[in-house]
Amino acid sequence: MSFDFEIQARDGAARTGVLKTPRGDIRTPAFMPVGTAATVKALYPEQVRAAGADIILGNTYHLMLRPGAERVKRLGGLHDFMRWDKPILTDSGGFQVWSLAGLRKLTEEGVEFQSHIDGSKHQLTPERAIEIQADLLGADISMQLDECTNFPCTEEEARTSMELSLRWGQRCKDAFGARDAQALFGIVQGSVYEHLRRESAQRLTEIGFDGYAVGGLAVGEGREAMCEVLDFTVPTLPDDRPHYLMGVGKPIDLVEAVARGIDMFDCVMPTRSGRHGQAWSDYGPVNLKRAEFAEDNTPLAPEIDCPASRDYSKAYLHHLTRAGEYLSAMLLSWHNIAYYQHLMQRMRAAIRSGEFDSFASEFRVRWAEGEARRS
Amino acid sequence: MSFDFEIQARDGAARTGVLKTPRGDIRTPAFMPVGTAATVKALYPEQVRAAGADIILGNTYHLMLRPGAERVKRLGGLHDFMRWDKPILTDSGGFQVWSLAGLRKLTEEGVEFQSHIDGSKHQLTPERAIEIQADLLGADISMQLDECTNFPCTEEEARTSMELSLRWGQRCKDAFGARDAQALFGIVQGSVYEHLRRESAQRLTEIGFDGYAVGGLAVGEGREAMCEVLDFTVPTLPDDRPHYLMGVGKPIDLVEAVARGIDMFDCVMPTRSGRHGQAWSDYGPVNLKRAEFAEDNTPLAPEIDCPASRDYSKAYLHHLTRAGEYLSAMLLSWHNIAYYQHLMQRMRAAIRSGEFDSFASEFRVRWAEGEARRS
Repeated sequence: MSFDFEIQARDGAARTGVLKTPRGDIRTPAFMPVGTAATVKALYPEQVRAAGADIILGNTYHLMLRPGAERVKRLGGLHDFMRWDKPILTDSGGFQVWSLAGLRKLTEEGVEFQSHIDGSKHQLTPERAIEIQADLLGADISMQLDECTNFPCTEEEARTSMELSLRWGQRCKDAFGARDAQALFGIVQGSVYEHLRRESAQRLTEIGFDGYAVGGLAVGEGREAMCEVLDFTVPTLPDDRPHYLMGVGKPIDLVEAVARGIDMFDCVMPTRSGRHGQAWSDYGPVNLKRAEFAEDNTPLAPEIDCPASRDYSKAYLHHLTRAGEYLSAMLLSWHNIAYYQHLMQRMRAAIRSGEFDSFASEFRVRWAEGEARRS
Repeated sequence: MSFDFEIQARDGAARTGVLKTPRGDIRTPAFMPVGTAATVKALYPEQVRAAGADIILGNTYHLMLRPGAERVKRLGGLHDFMRWDKPILTDSGGFQVWSLAGLRKLTEEGVEFQSHIDGSKHQLTPERAIEIQADLLGADISMQLDECTNFPCTEEEARTSMELSLRWGQRCKDAFGARDAQALFGIVQGSVYEHLRRESAQRLTEIGFDGYAVGGLAVGEGREAMCEVLDFTVPTLPDDRPHYLMGVGKPIDLVEAVARGIDMFDCVMPTRSGRHGQAWSDYGPVNLKRAEFAEDNTPLAPEIDCPASRDYSKAYLHHLTRAGEYLSAMLLSWHNIAYYQHLMQRMRAAIRSGEFDSFASEFRVRWAEGEARRS
């Protein structure tokens, strides 16, 4: 196991701790802002860091197409290229290629696909995914290549897909080898089928990874189904290793998943919403375009230590959003990342003080209140 | 005269000094970044300030349409609304309305026009222009309403237009009255006709303004014609008051105009170019999209004390620009504003040390070199 993972406190299934990497500690539960194309959209790296992010996520798919993984390597690796000296986790590209639908061809060897940028042909195999992530981009945490199972799907389809992901997981492990300063995570698949998820987790554990991700969720199954899958999957993951729920989610999803033992998250939601005039809160998304904010001189969230949350009025954000100004996306993305980090910090504190249950209950009430107000 | 203007050094026609306002000193020659819709596009106000800008420009036309001047007043004025506590100069809206061409109707009383946002009808008179700028937005420096003369135009058209601007100048002065903490600038018109420019300057001086702008340039007349107009116009302006060249320009234009006694500038060029992948330099614009920068690991301008100029590689800027990322516009606008402020600082220093002539000569050589390289 390359990185120490120190669980410092538990509260029910929830846990808080530190994943120690050569590039710095990752406080868990952790939310990783997504830096798809070597930038967390509309933010300076210093802002992402100051908001409290200990780690960000980069996308193998996007970076291999542009600027190209070999080019990033020649330019000193992803950290230097984008001026982020803290840890980076890269996904393997599997999810993005799966999203390409008609433009990809799957074989035992790997997946062939066409670039969404210029239509050029590319191949991603387990070995190439590791080379790109660990050797060329220089990721601190690499993800195994997997096939993201369609949803919904039959049990047989789920098993076939899961078996392929397991074989690819073994090949990734073999290609990765033993490294001191870099880690490799496996990905549990199996759709909504309990015995498949259990089997996937068990066989991944036998291969042996530095961390275990739950994949194939947040693909339209809904919050209730997601929670059910977590209920029967997380207990089967090695307890002493980080548990990462991929691509999730809304603030309420993070609270529910932490309650079930998840330690790491990534999601484009805070930055994507920020580019569409939305600010996140415990009550859900706030649409700054709404006329009610036109003369609201109060800030979004004075309790969050971030200029975007604390120093700018909703009236000004309303104006910027209506006018389509860059500064709207810049301030709302900044606030949203700060809100998400602040939420993680609140959850870590609640677990530490043994009050996570009441924190989660109160959060659910606020969230439901917000949903009722919007409907 | 409401603001003290202290000329501290001269070198030929060039001068450097300080315009003192209750919201802070403006070091001249000064470049004012343009904050059209209550934001200097793609920049935080703190960045604009840190780059060295002592004053920014706001647009009456845009702000009266959205969010509305009365609304800005209710929200505490333009400074509080956009979080800029240093001086603001507002244009009168004359130039933007003139740009609307078919959508406006000019009378002695003022100008009626249709909003480019929603087609609604609006009126701008000299009295309303002052009310919006000085009373509602709270500008530190207001501009008289003028008619921007078409280019090219006959001498008779230029005289008719200039006479109207003079009558509007008197009405603005009457509406503005006497104020301690705010200033009003008049605008010299007269197209390229020397005796009209002289007459305009003389009659404006008789009305009496706190500063004098040269309007109706940078409308397609070319650098040589602009310099000629400055050659015969600037000497007719009151020497002890600031001279403001509106809407100019490229770096070389600033150097040529400072050499002719101009003290203040505004232009959208640095921020607009920044949104289109261009970085300004002494050699002209650098197009970051060009393939030659794909693996250029050097920064844009390490000598400029701005993170965008100093800390990010051209290779990264090339990638961001190609990928259409927000951060490209953010970093290039930031660099461009910092470059423009750095250029003003270099000119102020050159005037102070009596070396402006050689500074300007060397600058012209670099600029010509850049033009030759690009052609």
